[in-house]
Parts: sequence; C-alpha cells; structure tokens
Amino acid sequence: MKADRYAPIGVFDSGVGGLTVVREIMRNLPAERIVYFGDTARVPYGNKSKETVLRYSRQIVKFLKTQQVKAIVIACNTASAHALDDLELETDVPIIGVVKPGASVAVKATRNKRIGVIATEGTIKSNLYQKLIQQADPKIQVFGKACPLLVPLVEEGWTRDPITYEVAARYLDKLLQEDIDTLIMGCTHYPLLRSLLREVAGEKVTLVNPAYETSQALKRLLLELELDNPDIYWEQTEPDDEKYRFYASDAVERFNAFANSVLPYEIQSTKQIQIDDY
Amino acid sequence: MKADRYAPIGVFDSGVGGLTVVREIMRNLPAERIVYFGDTARVPYGNKSKETVLRYSRQIVKFLKTQQVKAIVIACNTASAHALDDLELETDVPIIGVVKPGASVAVKATRNKRIGVIATEGTIKSNLYQKLIQQADPKIQVFGKACPLLVPLVEEGWTRDPITYEVAARYLDKLLQEDIDTLIMGCTHYPLLRSLLREVAGEKVTLVNPAYETSQALKRLLLELELDNPDIYWEQTEPDDEKYRFYASDAVERFNAFANSVLPYEIQSTKQIQIDDY
Repeated sequence: MKADRYAPIGVFDSGVGGLTVVREIMRNLPAERIVYFGDTARVPYGNKSKETVLRYSRQIVKFLKTQQVKAIVIACNTASAHALDDLELETDVPIIGVVKPGASVAVKATRNKRIGVIATEGTIKSNLYQKLIQQADPKIQVFGKACPLLVPLVEEGWTRDPITYEVAARYLDKLLQEDIDTLIMGCTHYPLLRSLLREVAGEKVTLVNPAYETSQALKRLLLELELDNPDIYWEQTEPDDEKYRFYASDAVERFNAFANSVLPYEIQSTKQIQIDDY
Repeated sequence: MKADRYAPIGVFDSGVGGLTVVREIMRNLPAERIVYFGDTARVPYGNKSKETVLRYSRQIVKFLKTQQVKAIVIACNTASAHALDDLELETDVPIIGVVKPGASVAVKATRNKRIGVIATEGTIKSNLYQKLIQQADPKIQVFGKACPLLVPLVEEGWTRDPITYEVAARYLDKLLQEDIDTLIMGCTHYPLLRSLLREVAGEKVTLVNPAYETSQALKRLLLELELDNPDIYWEQTEPDDEKYRFYASDAVERFNAFANSVLPYEIQSTKQIQIDDY
C-alpha cells in the first residue's frame, strides 16, 4: 500500500535534543506535519549500550507507526549509530538517521582531509561517523571525542558560559592539535552551543550541523518517493497542535519549557505516553 | 513469616551512585550480605517525575524480593524522596531511604539552625529534606539548591578538577551567603566530591553524608527487628560474589569500572537483567 502523502513525519530522540532537528524540518519543509516523541523517561541514550538503545528505539518506532507516519527521522545521533541499520531492515516505513547526512556533508566540506567528531560516548564508540566518512573517502582521517558534559551544560542553560567554554576547550584541545578543518557536532544538543564552539574552534574550522543536513536529506527522500505533502494549506497555516504533535515519556512540563526555548513557536500540549508498553 | 536473618540486604539506586551507600554498609555492617541493583538502563532519576521514579522503584523492589532480601535500602535520594512513602505501605519487607537519616543528623549538627541541601532537581523540588528537618525543629531554616552538573562531573572522573571547583562554587554561592553551618550532600554521588566540597564550603561548614548515616540507621533497624546476620562466617570471609551480588539493567562493564573505583575490592561479575519485565 502506498503511504499517505498527507501523513505526518515521525521524529524521535532520547529527549529534547532532537528538537534541533525538528526546528530544521519546520524551516526547510514547511508543508510537512510532524509527530515528535522524546523519551524523557529513559533519557539519556549517550552512555547506554547498543542493545538497550536498539530495544528502546524499536518501541518508539512501534509507537510512531500507531500515528500513521509516512517516514521516520531518528533525530538522535546515538540512536542513529546503534539502531538505524536494524530498524531499516525491520520497518516498512522509510527511515533515516542524522549520522549519514552529517558524515556526507563533512566529506564535502573538508579541504585537508582531517575531520573531528564530537558526540556522546555511544556514538564515538560505535565509530559510525568514521566508517561512513572513510567509505566515501579512505584518505580522510577522523578524530573522535566523547563529550559527556556538554549535554548537561546545555540543559542547565549555560550555553554562553565561561565554564562551558572551558569544558569545550578541554574536549576540543586534542582535535584542534590534530589540525582538523571540519568539526561535526555529532549530538543534537550541540548546535545550541554553536557560537561557543565557533569561538573555541576558531574561524578556520567548518562546523557541520547534522540537523540541517538531515532536513535536506529528508526533503530529497520525500520527493524521490513522492511522499512530500502537496497540501498548500499546511504550508500556509500557523504552527499549531494539529500540524505539530509532541509526545514524551515523562515530565512534559520540563519538556515544554525546553522546547519553547528551541522552537519558533509555543508548544501548547505535549502528551505523556508510557513507552515501555509498546 | 519471620524473615531470614541470614538473607541479604537489598540496596538499589538509579545507577552507580548508591555504591557509596554500599561502601558504608560494607564498612559498618561487615557481616551482612548485599544484593545491589543499579538501574543503568534508565539512569538518571534526578530530573524525572515522581510518577516515573515511583514506577521504576516498584519494579526494582519486585526484583529484589525475588532475591529473598530481608530488608531494602533505597540508596538514592531522588527515589527516597519520590517513592519511600508509597513503598513503605506496599512492601512487607522493612525499607529505609537515605533522606531521613541524612536529615536527622543534620538537625543534630547545626548550631545556627541554618542548613543547606544540595541534590538533584527531583529531590530539591520534593522539599523532603526541608519537611523532615522542620518536623524535627521548626526553627531551622533550610536552603536547597539543585546541582544537576555534579553527577556528570563525577562520572567524567573530574572529582578534583578546577572546572568542578568552579561549578560547585557557583552552586554553593547562595547557600554560603545564607550563612549555613551544615551542608547535606543530598545525592549519592556527592560524597565522591567531599574534599572539593570541603574546600568550597570552608572548614566551618559541617558536611553531612547521608550514606554513612543510612548505614547506621540500617544497623539499628536490623538489631531492633532481630534481623542482623549472626553468622560470623560472613564477617570473616573475604568479599566475594557470594557475599555481595551486583545487578544492573544495562552496560555492566561501565558499571564494573565505576564500582571498582568506589568499592574496597574488585567486583567480578555484575549480572544484567531487564528491569521493565518486573
């Protein structure tokens, strides 16, 4: 059965970070409806095992399918690294992650063939960015660094803080010594630190935001499969709870507060669901 | 039915922090066997809702009861704050948390009747330390501060780091301005920052470690209920996997690495279980 072009896109993340991907989809695919799920009851995924992250991701895909989504975006680097390969095989809805789009743009961006990746422990240990980049160009060297403190610093709201600057400088020190000219912000929270990371890394380093690249990859995918929403109504209407629906597995008030600092409009009513029932 | 005096104590936490409580029980109740569960698949609890933390805690108590424990220690401030009252009513095994012992020692320690509490967001918002302290002495003023970055800083291993010092100084600033003379380390990770917190708070502030106080409360409880283990064998034997058993819901290698930095002996074989099956 052909999927419904008018159906929403399903987007999920371990928590609130994926909202930076949602923001890019809203900007770049304004006619598309979105159903977002944030797994705030089990957040973060960054230091959990592949096995557990895959199990959680399967439950979420099952939930999103109950929402009749026409495509799914894994808006979480860790879940993309641990679960995308399996989910692609198991799921009859087209599904993309954030890692491949980020990797392929970094390959185009680098001049000196030295790329840095900052991400969670899980994403770094998976080596997925490195594998994808070197598949595209085996001469490129990739330098990874897990940065577990950056997410809590963003969630504390210290995005322009001298302490965060010091932490980022320490994390980036070795990568910069390796003379990288391109840096992948390999965790969906990190674009919220863009200006600070820009200062630490210097003007010569290109910052790659997989969230933006993913919205472009999604656009190409929908066009290719003829799944882009042709209804001009959605493009012209103001964002509301019918166009964009938000679900979280815990603490929806906290979710809303963060969402409203990231998204271009005020979320009204995030719904809480029990994700381990799926 | 009278519980078995030879049975182990069940201890649980959202992850590895509760091992500081285990360490105190090992030191102060050397004849007792322990079954520990760390919920590493869903860690942390500190920023999750009461409802979710209670649901998770119920599953863990159910698991610990399959291990025939004679008593249960909630070695997590957030779970103690959100779940102890309900679990006490529902559970036929004696159960204690870390908050009451910490609060009652702080009441005895303060001279100027001004107590500070640092903890997770969940523990601070529950106001439980404040309630218990003011039940004991309504004249005491309690000043709470959520410190969400301290746990990730400990888990990063930066326990004696200038960055951690700066973060702690910022968190403690207002409490110290309030002229507290007693500070409750209201999260099980914080005793691992004791020397740094001592430096930040200064010599005049008494640091209260609920982990130690909880081991003393457990000792009194077991004696009172005649549930202390009378078998001298366990006291004299070297720690091993029969005396101390460890379970986690994810990433047991990571768990072991942290445990072996906290505990006085090398853990051999932590077992992984799927906690949402309980």
